[in-house]
Amino acid sequence: MTSLQLSAQEEAVERLLDAAARGDLVQVSSLLALGPSLLNRAGHSGWTALMLAARNGHYDVAQALLLLGCDKFSVNNSSQTAYDVAAFWGHRHLVDLLGRTGKGPPGSALLDPPPENYFGRETLDRLSAKRTDRVWLEVRRSDADTVYLLFSNLSPMVSGPLEDGSGSAAVETKLCRFRYEAIKDLLQKPATVLVFLGVERRKTPSSSSARVADGLREPPAWFAINTDEDTAELLTRCGEKNCCFPKTPNRDLLRFSEEEADRRSPSLRPAGVVAQARSVLAWHSRYSFCPTCGGGTAPEEGGYKRSCLNPGCSSRKGVHNTCYPRVDPVVIMLVIHPDGNQCLLGRKKIFPIGMFSCLAGFVEPGETLEEAVRREVEEESGVKVGPVRYVSCQPWPMPSNLMIGCLAVAVSTAIKVDDDEIEEARWFPRQQVIDSFRGTRAAFTVPPRQTIAHQLIRHWIAGNSNL
Amino acid sequence: MTSLQLSAQEEAVERLLDAAARGDLVQVSSLLALGPSLLNRAGHSGWTALMLAARNGHYDVAQALLLLGCDKFSVNNSSQTAYDVAAFWGHRHLVDLLGRTGKGPPGSALLDPPPENYFGRETLDRLSAKRTDRVWLEVRRSDADTVYLLFSNLSPMVSGPLEDGSGSAAVETKLCRFRYEAIKDLLQKPATVLVFLGVERRKTPSSSSARVADGLREPPAWFAINTDEDTAELLTRCGEKNCCFPKTPNRDLLRFSEEEADRRSPSLRPAGVVAQARSVLAWHSRYSFCPTCGGGTAPEEGGYKRSCLNPGCSSRKGVHNTCYPRVDPVVIMLVIHPDGNQCLLGRKKIFPIGMFSCLAGFVEPGETLEEAVRREVEEESGVKVGPVRYVSCQPWPMPSNLMIGCLAVAVSTAIKVDDDEIEEARWFPRQQVIDSFRGTRAAFTVPPRQTIAHQLIRHWIAGNSNL
Repeated sequence: MTSLQLSAQEEAVERLLDAAARGDLVQVSSLLALGPSLLNRAGHSGWTALMLAARNGHYDVAQALLLLGCDKFSVNNSSQTAYDVAAFWGHRHLVDLLGRTGKGPPGSALLDPPPENYFGRETLDRLSAKRTDRVWLEVRRSDADTVYLLFSNLSPMVSGPLEDGSGSAAVETKLCRFRYEAIKDLLQKPATVLVFLGVERRKTPSSSSARVADGLREPPAWFAINTDEDTAELLTRCGEKNCCFPKTPNRDLLRFSEEEADRRSPSLRPAGVVAQARSVLAWHSRYSFCPTCGGGTAPEEGGYKRSCLNPGCSSRKGVHNTCYPRVDPVVIMLVIHPDGNQCLLGRKKIFPIGMFSCLAGFVEPGETLEEAVRREVEEESGVKVGPVRYVSCQPWPMPSNLMIGCLAVAVSTAIKVDDDEIEEARWFPRQQVIDSFRGTRAAFTVPPRQTIAHQLIRHWIAGNSNL
Repeated sequence: MTSLQLSAQEEAVERLLDAAARGDLVQVSSLLALGPSLLNRAGHSGWTALMLAARNGHYDVAQALLLLGCDKFSVNNSSQTAYDVAAFWGHRHLVDLLGRTGKGPPGSALLDPPPENYFGRETLDRLSAKRTDRVWLEVRRSDADTVYLLFSNLSPMVSGPLEDGSGSAAVETKLCRFRYEAIKDLLQKPATVLVFLGVERRKTPSSSSARVADGLREPPAWFAINTDEDTAELLTRCGEKNCCFPKTPNRDLLRFSEEEADRRSPSLRPAGVVAQARSVLAWHSRYSFCPTCGGGTAPEEGGYKRSCLNPGCSSRKGVHNTCYPRVDPVVIMLVIHPDGNQCLLGRKKIFPIGMFSCLAGFVEPGETLEEAVRREVEEESGVKVGPVRYVSCQPWPMPSNLMIGCLAVAVSTAIKVDDDEIEEARWFPRQQVIDSFRGTRAAFTVPPRQTIAHQLIRHWIAGNSNL
């Protein structure tokens, strides 16, 4: 490119920026029709056409730039996006335009589905009404189509190597599935715990012939069993090679594929099924005695209830939470700096070197989610939090947490770490977080994508980076 | 008004509507300057100026009408608001404008604080780090400023009549507060359970002299105790008249005032304190035995932990949820009809005659909040739900639920009630719901304002009636 061409293009950039700043939609459109590459070019102090349109409240220009694919996340020399500029100058319609994720029909912005998290993907219909139908359960238990998952010490039997040598999580494991004949002896053992997980969801039949072929058969039922039998013997029951019971659940259970194909159950999301099964089985292993009287209990209702065997126990009158599986709500939050361009991450001593993550903590009795976020952040980091917004949640079956993910806006910035909880907490500039996701010049690492912490940070970077 | 004046005004309405439909901001403004009463007038088929501006995408006109105080919730003859109209015609910037609640600084729409619910109002700082500081707790227990709440059979002692004869909830009760001297004998009894609730939050000192006067004194600490001593004797310990231990918690505990004034603790929100205290005390009463081994347990950490006394129990190694208070997450949801103008409410047999409420149910292990909403709605009513949006939550200390309130959009409408769960479920048109809140021509009643069901329904009516 000659210096003459260069200066001609510089001049075109200046004309585009000027037109955008004036709100001259006709000129902006014609300049971009002639030179589409001008779209994201920045002028003085790193200001783009979109930022200038945002500065002066020109909705139509901003909308046209976005429709042409303009990068709304680029920042000027003051680390402001077009959204920041619009917010600062009080152009609410532009704030709304620039804050959108760009999906869904009109008006659906507030109802964009939350991101689907790893353990939150359910494929079975729990059919909870059937849990009290003993006859139905009995029939399904011995049905030839029924699928059993086999757990030992709360780990499911899986096939596929857990380590590929590279230390990466790229290699996926698969759940081992059993039929009734292969495990029916285990059902007779007193220490075996059986949980009804649900039935496969039918896809909408694609043709009437498929319906006919399907006849009136019910979709396959799924059960999980936990046994204390010898694991070596259990492994011989499976036809697959490389079977094992993973030893480190909070690492090994993150290696399931998004969807698992099987000849008979074409599409299944194993992580969601494991989350359900492991949580309920863990409850049985920890809650086999009645907390109210100390007496023994016996499982009922397909594994979703344990009733006290002591006739005099008060838990036998009325409904008591002691009889039902426990779910522990946990708040996990990405705290955004008041300037909107940094986020607060902390690290525990047990984290891999260089990893930082969101702060988190259990919700206490009598506390709202929002108050729990504020309390935990202040306790762990000394930072005070104002507004809190729910983003998405995922079950975390270690043993039975529900991780409730929120964005939170800080109203103070000084950090004072509680050493008992975390080792270090720091404000990370947005660019450093982006670099960390890209793996280039990464100053730190984020948790793996299967965690809600990862998804919260990505969510902030991708679409809601400006609060 | 003469017929001539009448027709002149009718003509002005027509001119206003026409100008709004054309997007003529100058004419709209001048017509309204002359006749402000025209603002909400409707023409053909009940269409207002705002609806016509929304129909044709005139953002500036709609904004001006809103600034002038125009009613954005009025509906045309097809029960559509201006928001509905904008959404139908795909004017996203108008959808955003009309969907806003109108509070907060620019860009804060997504971060509007959720409504503050009755049991969700915390005034104490829980200071959880102090729970393991035995010396500090010991000192605060006997401090002259320390406040004790006295529970018997999980009911707090309150003053003020529980019934005013009219059956209304207008009469408020107050928490009875005790000093150390008045209850210290109870602390020695083995059956007494003691829970540290926190300390009063200091208001920002208004003057430096107030700070000096305050010296280095710590803010008063609060404790709750549950005792099985004779209630008549306990009541004599209080100086207030009309004291009692309410017998019906889920009715009587709804009668606290929003803020309770006291000479020494000027501002306290009693419902939030009771939610915390009752949940933790209920946990002690139900979980005094170790669920893992059936052995006895002893309270620790200011009442927030119970450890098994059996040295061989596995719950003594590592961290186990069996040792910590339980919080049971419950989803409660207002399901909106696909047409946006009806909501689904159900009634249980135990409800007062004519009362309908939101559907609700416990979150199960391995389940997201959104999946729990979909499962519960389909189980109870047969209606299938698509998008789910979190609105707000509140603790419900009966005994320790966390009610997580959501709006949900139905994708099917046929109702098939599960008789075991509810007696009836029905789609209620928006106007009927409004009438119910107004108490005029009410076809049904909604639960009291202290419930999150009430707040969810009000939220839909007031600001988010259009999804």
